[in-house]
Amino acid sequence: MHSVPDWVKALKPASPQGSDLLRQEREQSNVAVEKLGELLHTKEVLDRKKRMLALLQYDEVFDKSQNHSLGRVERLQRSLAKAKRLQVLAEQHKWSMEELHMANDLIGEPTPYGLHATMFLVTLQGQGTPEQHKLFLERAQKYQILGCYAQTELGHGSNVRGLETTATWNADDKTFTIHSPTLTASKWWIGSLGRTANHAVVMAQLFIGGKNYGPHPFVVQIRDLETHEPLENVYVGDIGPKFGYNTMDNGFLLFNKVKVPHVNMLARFSSVDKETNKYVRPAMPSLVYGTLTWVRSNIVLQAGSVLARGVTIATRYCAVRRQFQDRDAHEGASENQVLNYKMVQIRLLPLLAAMYALHFTGRGVMDLYQENQKRMNAKPQPGQETRGAGPEELRASADLLADLHATTCGLKALASTTAGEGLEVCRRACGGHGYSSYSGIGPWYADYLPTLTWEGDNYMLSQQVARYLLKSARAVLAGKGTNNDTCQILQTYLSRREKGASFDILEEDKDIVSAFAWRTSHLTFEALKHRDAEKRSWNSLLVDFYRLATAHSQYLVVKNFFEAVSSPKLTGSLDSETTGILHKLFRLYALNTLENHAAEFFSSGAVTIRQITLTRTNAVMKLLDEIRPHAVRLVDAWHIPDWQLDSSLGRHDGQVYDDLFKRASEQNPVNDLVFDPYPWNKALLKNEPRSKL
Amino acid sequence: MHSVPDWVKALKPASPQGSDLLRQEREQSNVAVEKLGELLHTKEVLDRKKRMLALLQYDEVFDKSQNHSLGRVERLQRSLAKAKRLQVLAEQHKWSMEELHMANDLIGEPTPYGLHATMFLVTLQGQGTPEQHKLFLERAQKYQILGCYAQTELGHGSNVRGLETTATWNADDKTFTIHSPTLTASKWWIGSLGRTANHAVVMAQLFIGGKNYGPHPFVVQIRDLETHEPLENVYVGDIGPKFGYNTMDNGFLLFNKVKVPHVNMLARFSSVDKETNKYVRPAMPSLVYGTLTWVRSNIVLQAGSVLARGVTIATRYCAVRRQFQDRDAHEGASENQVLNYKMVQIRLLPLLAAMYALHFTGRGVMDLYQENQKRMNAKPQPGQETRGAGPEELRASADLLADLHATTCGLKALASTTAGEGLEVCRRACGGHGYSSYSGIGPWYADYLPTLTWEGDNYMLSQQVARYLLKSARAVLAGKGTNNDTCQILQTYLSRREKGASFDILEEDKDIVSAFAWRTSHLTFEALKHRDAEKRSWNSLLVDFYRLATAHSQYLVVKNFFEAVSSPKLTGSLDSETTGILHKLFRLYALNTLENHAAEFFSSGAVTIRQITLTRTNAVMKLLDEIRPHAVRLVDAWHIPDWQLDSSLGRHDGQVYDDLFKRASEQNPVNDLVFDPYPWNKALLKNEPRSKL
Repeated sequence: MHSVPDWVKALKPASPQGSDLLRQEREQSNVAVEKLGELLHTKEVLDRKKRMLALLQYDEVFDKSQNHSLGRVERLQRSLAKAKRLQVLAEQHKWSMEELHMANDLIGEPTPYGLHATMFLVTLQGQGTPEQHKLFLERAQKYQILGCYAQTELGHGSNVRGLETTATWNADDKTFTIHSPTLTASKWWIGSLGRTANHAVVMAQLFIGGKNYGPHPFVVQIRDLETHEPLENVYVGDIGPKFGYNTMDNGFLLFNKVKVPHVNMLARFSSVDKETNKYVRPAMPSLVYGTLTWVRSNIVLQAGSVLARGVTIATRYCAVRRQFQDRDAHEGASENQVLNYKMVQIRLLPLLAAMYALHFTGRGVMDLYQENQKRMNAKPQPGQETRGAGPEELRASADLLADLHATTCGLKALASTTAGEGLEVCRRACGGHGYSSYSGIGPWYADYLPTLTWEGDNYMLSQQVARYLLKSARAVLAGKGTNNDTCQILQTYLSRREKGASFDILEEDKDIVSAFAWRTSHLTFEALKHRDAEKRSWNSLLVDFYRLATAHSQYLVVKNFFEAVSSPKLTGSLDSETTGILHKLFRLYALNTLENHAAEFFSSGAVTIRQITLTRTNAVMKLLDEIRPHAVRLVDAWHIPDWQLDSSLGRHDGQVYDDLFKRASEQNPVNDLVFDPYPWNKALLKNEPRSKL
Repeated sequence: MHSVPDWVKALKPASPQGSDLLRQEREQSNVAVEKLGELLHTKEVLDRKKRMLALLQYDEVFDKSQNHSLGRVERLQRSLAKAKRLQVLAEQHKWSMEELHMANDLIGEPTPYGLHATMFLVTLQGQGTPEQHKLFLERAQKYQILGCYAQTELGHGSNVRGLETTATWNADDKTFTIHSPTLTASKWWIGSLGRTANHAVVMAQLFIGGKNYGPHPFVVQIRDLETHEPLENVYVGDIGPKFGYNTMDNGFLLFNKVKVPHVNMLARFSSVDKETNKYVRPAMPSLVYGTLTWVRSNIVLQAGSVLARGVTIATRYCAVRRQFQDRDAHEGASENQVLNYKMVQIRLLPLLAAMYALHFTGRGVMDLYQENQKRMNAKPQPGQETRGAGPEELRASADLLADLHATTCGLKALASTTAGEGLEVCRRACGGHGYSSYSGIGPWYADYLPTLTWEGDNYMLSQQVARYLLKSARAVLAGKGTNNDTCQILQTYLSRREKGASFDILEEDKDIVSAFAWRTSHLTFEALKHRDAEKRSWNSLLVDFYRLATAHSQYLVVKNFFEAVSSPKLTGSLDSETTGILHKLFRLYALNTLENHAAEFFSSGAVTIRQITLTRTNAVMKLLDEIRPHAVRLVDAWHIPDWQLDSSLGRHDGQVYDDLFKRASEQNPVNDLVFDPYPWNKALLKNEPRSKL
């Protein structure tokens, strides 16, 4: 790169400096940044992060400075190099799975090993037999084979039952023929497949004797282990550039009657009997159920951290950026910090609250799930029958699991939508500079967006939530409701319906939770009436179902957030000032959400119009004032290191403008280009030859 | 690229084919695609588009296939080559300005000539004297000098008065010294500056004798005309990668006391008297006022077409894509077109309506503006005094212009937000494939997003709208309201306030318009009460102002849309079936907007809760049913050529899957990469050397 002249080096940003402004921000609040960070992430995790960071951030392989300037080919190559380096480090330092995941988090981009290290290993582990573990899993764990999970097809995403790839059992030679009958049967979007994997778990319709037994998983080798060239009758490649995720080689895959041996069908749950050529029915289908619940709870928990990156950047930058004088200020007043404007606060501070809300909700749901799993798996000891799970308990556990499954469908949708759309709100709150890749928000947003579609499209999932709520409502009406939370709120609504709600949302926090429960219940019984009494078509109710699922999920977040800030675990480990601020965040999240959906709360009778007006003009505005001074500390508590943020605007030290300038002038390969700017060879103008661009 | 095996070439997508599905869609509707297209764009423009397309689409320079795979350096180089080629073609074919703009539209990306061809030329033209036109404009028009418009700085975007760059008048040698006193004074985000321009119009604080006269425009040469190297004491470069707009070299620029002659201050409106060293005050400041109104009206009009690209793609793809059986369908029914699902319709069809609404609104505002300009500029002829504009008329014109200025502020914000956010809704409605760059939506969305920030940040603009509405309300209360539309609706509200609204929004279209006017007026007087009676601070009202500006802008769109679909021009040129569908689009846009802001309509007394419920459950749902069969033809009528859309999903012929596959397998440079997938040199595993990645 060219050198920077001395007179430029001597320049400083106009005062006050960003570092001074952030220091003032931190001085005006007593939020316990360290204690709160430990409560959110645990001290162990924070310490681990520091350790890993020291190891990674000065390693040249992990340099981030060129990420947003390079084309796909180079980005992919560099990302593979990062993945390899991580794997070497993992071996050297004997990292646990948590440590490897954290390293990937710090790197901050998906790598071509991504699907091998997650779905491929998990599927082999979970759906393979001991024999198959030996054959595939052990080699995969040693990176002697590299794999992916090939389910989605060009013509089929959400509807797994509609997959076109076939696996036909050949009774004569005891093999399966894997085949792609059409172009739309091509596997598509498969992570790590495009250039990296030499094996794939392929989901294919199992045919035995002409009968279709539905989609099943098959391990298929697709590339040579030596040359890495595709095997015969396999057509495989990368599907091309994407909105984000361009460091991943999402791929396509077609088979032309490729034979695999009997052992390649993953057979832990169902299989084909080699002798009788009969299909062996799956055992324990509810296990998959549990895995999905776990995956989705994780998305909820992560959504908090995903959003926290954007909120951290925007909050710090809006405290550093100053623009205009306050209109009511005296003549000659200095420019106002952007974060002081109410129109900025109303966009950012509810998201600040939401990142805490989603975090506590994800944590709450996962705790519940784990407790329940423990209870279910507790085997009665001889002579100690009472310590194991009895049939009564098992039934209750299964009921809770079903409830968790449905509620996490809705929570996954709400959380990922909140995080994805929230990041774009954060980006815009940064004004023009938000559009620079150096803001760190745009690239992160673009990489996160698939989460709104995968693991169940957010719109599709709402149907599962609605179906479950309708079923629960029917049970409650028939006097067969269980004592899970969903049945309880429906029951409460029914019993109080006649005399009305009369919640005091402006004074009583628990009444806010009740108002959300009331709205969900009201919408559920309305939907039930449409479906069961009025016999309306399912399709005509999809919009109602989406509203219902959103309402129910918001109730769950509000409830979990309230429980978390009231829990002894929290109040016991934080000072009362910090706890007080967290309570305010709860109220801001809940009341702002309520106000944004005012019509539903009002028409369900949960609140009065007067209450809604007061919520907006008084309660929410007052909460913005009260939370504003603590905003910077509340994002600091999330403890996201600068190297992970990779943002000029979000730097912990506030040196925003120096960093933007440094990156533009010193790390930007475009500045090595020299243009001939004229449309014609200059020769045409000046009679002297000059090479064109 | 590698070759595609024959067995792959023989594959077809599963039936029914996309082409058949789109044919059915077109057969089931009689919407007059050609006539409607001519009404929207004129026959002249559609013919021009065909001509230009034939000229451009097979020219290799304009090849689009690698756009989303390349890095910034290559993209920028290619984009400059495109810009040069366009300029050469423009000379050869003697293109008008409209033709050059259309060519740029078809190319579909900003080029490094962008700001030269617009803001640089326009500013020289509009703010230069005849002498300056000769000196700068004529050479710029011939591309002998290339320029940009340098206003925004690292530390100042919205607040132009806060710019830090100075231009100090030197009375001794009759020059100006252009200087950047701080790092934040660096010009930033300046289009065409990074690598291309050799001149800049620099906005700088004019100092004469130590006194600051505010920001003024100066022409400054920044690079050598021969070597293209930066001149001494000029530090200039590209600001780095962005979320989109990466084919443009947005730049930074610092000056170390650079002297320019007296003639370089653009002096049409204000200047420094060379003899007296005195500042000469600006004439006709209202002219700038008019230009901004024009620019913003244009953004409103374009927003319709911007959104139309996304809606065209999503609508066609959702008609081709089939997923799941309808839940109430008989066993074994084939999969349903995604466009048949109500949850897809409620997302797409209101956007289909919005693209028409924004188009007609932009057109309406521009017509009004032009008429008014004509009237104002009509000079009285000798002896024909009555044909010119009298003082009365001039006052009315000025009043209308002020009204237009304020309303276009709000409309710019609403239109660009609707288009920008609408594109993302369209992308998600395409499911997983929406995330592929081959969808054509993501890159277009990313390039469009700056429109939400520039020409007035959408949040900032709301203050101007509110200020104007408050001023008008004060005038009306004082009995001094004029007869412009804003004063009229406020007056109507005041006169009926006591007896209430009682609009019949479900039966009478004009009552829908009245309900929107009512809500705006109610919010205006509420805000006025807060500000004038309750003396609330400006800052505390910003959120109210934003709601108010949005409400008012929605009223304007609804009003303009209604007037357009009822106008003799439209009804006279279209058959009654097509007109009927356009009326339904009006109702869908209006009622869906009303329902989304139900609480405001209800609490202002514009409608009853019962009406809102019926709007949602009956009116909107029925409109979706009625518009659905015409959706494909309604996007066809926009006449966006496939080459411009650059989308596999949005192809006019419906061959979605073939095209996605073709692009991935044949146009994707990633597929030329060969990976060594193992983390270690394979030698470690197999004792044979092999080169690493």
